[in-house]
Amino acid sequence: MTRVNKQIILAKRPQGMPDNNTFQFVKKDVADVKDGQILIKTLYVSVDPYMRGRMENVESYVEPFKLNEVIDGGSIGEVIESKSDRFKEGDVVTGMFGWQEYYVAGENEVRPIDPSIAPITTHLGILGMTGLTAYFGLLDIGKPKEGETIVISGAAGSVGSTVGQIAKIKGTRVVGIAGSDEKISYLKDELNFDEGINYRTTDDIKSDLQRACPDGIDVYFDNVGGEISDAVMTQLNRYARIPICGAISTYNMEETDIGPRVQQTLIKKSALMQGFTVGNYSDRFKEGAQQLGQWLQEGKLTYRETIREGFDNIPDAFLDLFRGKNIGKLLVKVANRQYG
Amino acid sequence: MTRVNKQIILAKRPQGMPDNNTFQFVKKDVADVKDGQILIKTLYVSVDPYMRGRMENVESYVEPFKLNEVIDGGSIGEVIESKSDRFKEGDVVTGMFGWQEYYVAGENEVRPIDPSIAPITTHLGILGMTGLTAYFGLLDIGKPKEGETIVISGAAGSVGSTVGQIAKIKGTRVVGIAGSDEKISYLKDELNFDEGINYRTTDDIKSDLQRACPDGIDVYFDNVGGEISDAVMTQLNRYARIPICGAISTYNMEETDIGPRVQQTLIKKSALMQGFTVGNYSDRFKEGAQQLGQWLQEGKLTYRETIREGFDNIPDAFLDLFRGKNIGKLLVKVANRQYG
Repeated sequence: MTRVNKQIILAKRPQGMPDNNTFQFVKKDVADVKDGQILIKTLYVSVDPYMRGRMENVESYVEPFKLNEVIDGGSIGEVIESKSDRFKEGDVVTGMFGWQEYYVAGENEVRPIDPSIAPITTHLGILGMTGLTAYFGLLDIGKPKEGETIVISGAAGSVGSTVGQIAKIKGTRVVGIAGSDEKISYLKDELNFDEGINYRTTDDIKSDLQRACPDGIDVYFDNVGGEISDAVMTQLNRYARIPICGAISTYNMEETDIGPRVQQTLIKKSALMQGFTVGNYSDRFKEGAQQLGQWLQEGKLTYRETIREGFDNIPDAFLDLFRGKNIGKLLVKVANRQYG
Repeated sequence: MTRVNKQIILAKRPQGMPDNNTFQFVKKDVADVKDGQILIKTLYVSVDPYMRGRMENVESYVEPFKLNEVIDGGSIGEVIESKSDRFKEGDVVTGMFGWQEYYVAGENEVRPIDPSIAPITTHLGILGMTGLTAYFGLLDIGKPKEGETIVISGAAGSVGSTVGQIAKIKGTRVVGIAGSDEKISYLKDELNFDEGINYRTTDDIKSDLQRACPDGIDVYFDNVGGEISDAVMTQLNRYARIPICGAISTYNMEETDIGPRVQQTLIKKSALMQGFTVGNYSDRFKEGAQQLGQWLQEGKLTYRETIREGFDNIPDAFLDLFRGKNIGKLLVKVANRQYG
């Protein structure tokens, strides 16, 4: 029996916001499964802001997507055929098999997930790359100390919402910046952030920051860049640390991203800015995942997911990231489990 | 006998480049020397770019100069009267007694200098704050590793020229950016920098950087900020480190300093920018001074001084810093030693 594999390929590199010309749906026969391989049926795919960067043909920390190839990205799937001793039908696995319905994987390409411990989708979110991004960026670069004040931009997103909760565990005052009243309520009421600032409705974000951070800002976990970051930079304390995780406000810009230069501020405050990507910490993933799992089990961490349904909606879900629609981790559900 | 003390006070906070209205010469009687105090006659005063920042009435890492008070700064003087057991007439001392001919100091305010080890002026330069600035900024933030490439802006200045030599000691490829052919010759011929770029005469600093740094840039020691730094930022390697020591190109700007935002670059390169000031390392000054002294004695470090003569020329010497005139440490000689 030949199965047909629906894929989404990068048809054209976008200029500015990706659109209908960026992506193309194609169908291909699924290859035969050889010894040592498994056939995976995709259950969930992750859509993440960093993928926008990979659509550009520029050198970065991960190589660019290739034209006319499947969009790569984190996924969860179920093994539906196995010629490997290490996997059996019904096993749930995660890996980078991207935007397609089926994938024939070598046995070292994917990692098994235990569905009895936590919902499998957490492995694309709080127990996966986004949780690890929050964990290492905050603790390794931000180094929050008890009693300090931390500001998080993109605070209601998958990474930001985890950063804020870890910062609360560490005993800091946590202020989140987000783009809707619903998000601000989520931060304050569900995640116990100390303050929230809606950057879309405020008249004066600097005054809001001053009110929310009466003792200044010691750590700024930056997911957005742009003018929000310009405002935060004016209120840093001495020895402030700024993990630069993302700059989503600028990913779809066609012109050069221009703003106040930061050098004088960094000198005056002896402040540190450091860009990072979670892959820098791959040798410590186990440590991070264990700690996150423990906090989750202890009820010290919580998370939200926004789950869109249907393979055909993946591109639109991806674009929602830039429309600021999601709270927490944004996923697309592609299929139900056959087994288990 | 009442001595008259000539002083230079801050008469008006400058907007843009300081001018004749910024400084005022005044005369005051020298106070009596009380028990535990010493009277110092100034021999040399240091003029440094960071002093421009202290002329603004804004919060920074050092407090602003006060209006109508003596301009504070590093000096070297000779004890000409002592009511302290720890000092005798003829002792040479260094401290922050600023732009005046005489100063009555408490015995803990100044530090003795041994004139037999190195010329006394080195304590305002390579063995003083500028040497320590180079030492800690480069080694603690830049962390150069053998075989890496380091770019230094303001490379022929007091700090930059020391940074480059320490970087050579550490086995790196050293590229200096400076503003005259004479400075470039100094860097290459006397200090053994691998390459020099004259930013005033180049048509395309990015191409020059590419030629000078074929393996990219691992450390950027930044003394100048502005467009030179924008250009360097385009050629960073992964995990680059950027100690931000100064931003002299912007100190006299009246408008906001605008340029390409750095966040996306920092993310793509997992790069670190950190502002600092030498005072952050005060608990390690002894370590730094010992190492610098050792390298100097071993002939591994050299230095140049530009010495202007005469108390009345201090303001003009200070402005020379922003005219790019000096090579190495810029000092003003105020008086000859009476003793020794």
